[in-house]
Amino acid sequence: MSAIEQLTAELAKLPGIGRKTATRLTFHLLKQPRGTVESLARAIQTLAERIAPCSTCGNYSETDPCSICEDSRRDRAILCVVEEASDLEAIERSGEFRGLYHVLGGHLSPLDGVGPDDLRIDDLFRRVENGSGVREVILATNPSMEGEVTATYIRGVLAPVGLQVTRIALGLPVGGDLEYADRQTIAQALAARREMQ
Amino acid sequence: MSAIEQLTAELAKLPGIGRKTATRLTFHLLKQPRGTVESLARAIQTLAERIAPCSTCGNYSETDPCSICEDSRRDRAILCVVEEASDLEAIERSGEFRGLYHVLGGHLSPLDGVGPDDLRIDDLFRRVENGSGVREVILATNPSMEGEVTATYIRGVLAPVGLQVTRIALGLPVGGDLEYADRQTIAQALAARREMQ
Repeated sequence: MSAIEQLTAELAKLPGIGRKTATRLTFHLLKQPRGTVESLARAIQTLAERIAPCSTCGNYSETDPCSICEDSRRDRAILCVVEEASDLEAIERSGEFRGLYHVLGGHLSPLDGVGPDDLRIDDLFRRVENGSGVREVILATNPSMEGEVTATYIRGVLAPVGLQVTRIALGLPVGGDLEYADRQTIAQALAARREMQ
Repeated sequence: MSAIEQLTAELAKLPGIGRKTATRLTFHLLKQPRGTVESLARAIQTLAERIAPCSTCGNYSETDPCSICEDSRRDRAILCVVEEASDLEAIERSGEFRGLYHVLGGHLSPLDGVGPDDLRIDDLFRRVENGSGVREVILATNPSMEGEVTATYIRGVLAPVGLQVTRIALGLPVGGDLEYADRQTIAQALAARREMQ
């Protein structure tokens, strides 16, 4: 396989990129100065080498614990639970949340064989147990059916622990994806969070 | 800048990829096994290192001359002139052309300051001069206004040389882009090529 075919095949593996787009991107890169192309290669290589999940919150990070978990100015009494690190990123961009995070690594999806043991729910329980100092857990899973089911399940798991469990407000469009929401919507959804029954 | 921000910025420089898509791709890569991510980085690096334009036809290649120019089974009497190497690739995929190519590196576009000297038109003239053995030049520039203007201009340049100059048939949708045409359309357009007046 030639270098052109090789890269086209690699790019076509990415989500939302078909063979035609992959070909277009490859030929675009061919027209760029070598330095430009190499800095893209380097950025991808660096990502592979340096980034790993934070052992506390599950966020991708170059350090362990991550810079958010280590930040002494953040409120350690509030934990925001999200499905994916990309959701955490979206909430950080809103600038409305100053607590800590917990990344589940997905949502419950029995049809796809994803059960509670496949998500970081046990870790969450240990982080918020009595004596941990955590007063509130905000469930910021996506406003989709799976996200709601996951939130409800976690609500049940955390019931024995005496803390407040809230759900972000459905200011987010139902069926949507937190990752793509604009920062105002996210800010509103956080401000209007409600206690889960 | 973190490795995540760095890669997102690099990806957002690619055509058709905005900041949101770049973020999505970066987080997709974070979820992949390290080997997968590294093979993408390697494919891009290899592209930067190994690929350069063929000094004869202008096609991107790992060798100089390229494998098409070197292929003794191809018909050296017919030259197909295209705007970009990606157009050449599209014609090759149609499997309908067994001659050689000449990549111009763009089309005439006075408004963008692209004149004849910016394209490989002199090189083309030298390749087809009397005694070269070339009998026919197929002008396969895009069926856009610029492509037509470029074809007409080259027709004039080649007039003093005693050879046949043809234009691919307008089976391609006018205003479209050769790079994205399907192989049947390209095959038809090649078969129905007509002599230029």
